[in-house]
Amino acid sequence: MLRIPEHQVAGHYADGDKAGPLVDDRGRFYKPLQGDERGVKEVAFYESFSSNHEIPQNIRKFFPVFHGTEAIEASNGSGPQPHLVLEDVVANHQNPSVMDIKVGARTWYPQASEDYFRKCIEKDRGSTTMELGFRVSGLKVYGKGSSGIWKPGKKFVQSFTRKDVKLVLKNFVSSNLPTGSSLNPRPDCCFASTVYGGILFQLLELKKWFETQTMYHFCSSSVLLFFGQGSSLAQVKLVDFAHVIDGDGVIDHNFLGGLCSLIKHLSDILDEAGKGNE
Amino acid sequence: MLRIPEHQVAGHYADGDKAGPLVDDRGRFYKPLQGDERGVKEVAFYESFSSNHEIPQNIRKFFPVFHGTEAIEASNGSGPQPHLVLEDVVANHQNPSVMDIKVGARTWYPQASEDYFRKCIEKDRGSTTMELGFRVSGLKVYGKGSSGIWKPGKKFVQSFTRKDVKLVLKNFVSSNLPTGSSLNPRPDCCFASTVYGGILFQLLELKKWFETQTMYHFCSSSVLLFFGQGSSLAQVKLVDFAHVIDGDGVIDHNFLGGLCSLIKHLSDILDEAGKGNE
Repeated sequence: MLRIPEHQVAGHYADGDKAGPLVDDRGRFYKPLQGDERGVKEVAFYESFSSNHEIPQNIRKFFPVFHGTEAIEASNGSGPQPHLVLEDVVANHQNPSVMDIKVGARTWYPQASEDYFRKCIEKDRGSTTMELGFRVSGLKVYGKGSSGIWKPGKKFVQSFTRKDVKLVLKNFVSSNLPTGSSLNPRPDCCFASTVYGGILFQLLELKKWFETQTMYHFCSSSVLLFFGQGSSLAQVKLVDFAHVIDGDGVIDHNFLGGLCSLIKHLSDILDEAGKGNE
Repeated sequence: MLRIPEHQVAGHYADGDKAGPLVDDRGRFYKPLQGDERGVKEVAFYESFSSNHEIPQNIRKFFPVFHGTEAIEASNGSGPQPHLVLEDVVANHQNPSVMDIKVGARTWYPQASEDYFRKCIEKDRGSTTMELGFRVSGLKVYGKGSSGIWKPGKKFVQSFTRKDVKLVLKNFVSSNLPTGSSLNPRPDCCFASTVYGGILFQLLELKKWFETQTMYHFCSSSVLLFFGQGSSLAQVKLVDFAHVIDGDGVIDHNFLGGLCSLIKHLSDILDEAGKGNE
């Protein structure tokens, strides 16, 4: 039984005409291949990565497991379409709070067309991408117990300033949720140490790898941060690989720089939360 | 007695009409204030930095000592002009080999005018800046004993591709110098372990600071790498601060990313040289 994923927070949704991703009950995530070269490139990345023996095990766990491609009935009922078959990374989490963060101060790549370059750099300068080295692309937060869900709309998310982002990162780990298109200016950060403690440990593992890996440059990829209610641990996954290019002997300094900036932001919240508890 | 510095490899030279830097015998370097806001901004940076108590001692040593400003006779004889008075960082080195590397995948800054942005991004995409996260702006290398000097011309330096840069970084620590406008395709890297060993240690100290410092963003600044003949140790200094802006609570992910890329390049050369000696 395929259904529309409940916990997607960014990227291409199924809407009206357009096919979107699907999930099944076996923990698989079906992502329709984007029609242009992006679909082909994302498949090429997963094939390269999943067969690459130089990926350390502690790094492989940050990527969704790849189960090949499959033609299935598209979510918009337009008939069988090719889909990437991936691990549904949040499948085992109850009420997962999820945040999608696009990492890197630049989302375009050297070989991009002038059109693509112009489109991206406008977004990079218009969002926090250029200044912070990352931007929040979407999020969904569950309140304590049954206190509801906060899922800001796309337009509101796109309007986040650098100051907003600092606050959003706090709201993500707080029990006193904002309502509607606003942020809670006094988030309690009550999950900061559990959630960001675990996430920072994982981001530092990733950072270490990015300091030396010269195989892939992850343009316009995201880190997905999520944690379930109850005992499930906070996790980090990398997603969206339609613009991964060959690193060709150079580290991905763009992704690495953004990752370090995100790490510093989360460390600051952790430090502050720690001081609050003293 | 003021004279034109012998070991400058990049930046604004004295030529014809234009005033350039001067040095004296007491180890001071006089840099004419650039007429527009750049001069003002560079003075402001040195004043802020030299009185900033949050700069750790092990980081302060990477910056030229600041001795204020002084009106002195300009190098082009145009009368007394205001100059920055700085430490002449290579003064104590005999026949110093020097390389100026502009760090960061982006040399412009968010608040820059559209004109400045366009000018910079064209250079960043046309040089190795965007791809490698740094570009070589100039260098001068002394051969072993009296085997001469290699100082490639400005046009040649500006034409360096990413493959050239890898070779230039090897030529910088080799005794078999290139001649004229070419690179030696088989550099012996005989100084690699002494020079890059010492330089890497210092770059890693800097990296650590850049992972957490959120006070300054160094747009279009350079690291100067240099070593003298004989026993003098290889050194690293940061220079050129006309485009430093307030970090405002965010790390300088642009400089940090480029620095990490440079570190990886030098580590690779060190590893290769080590293997060659086994």
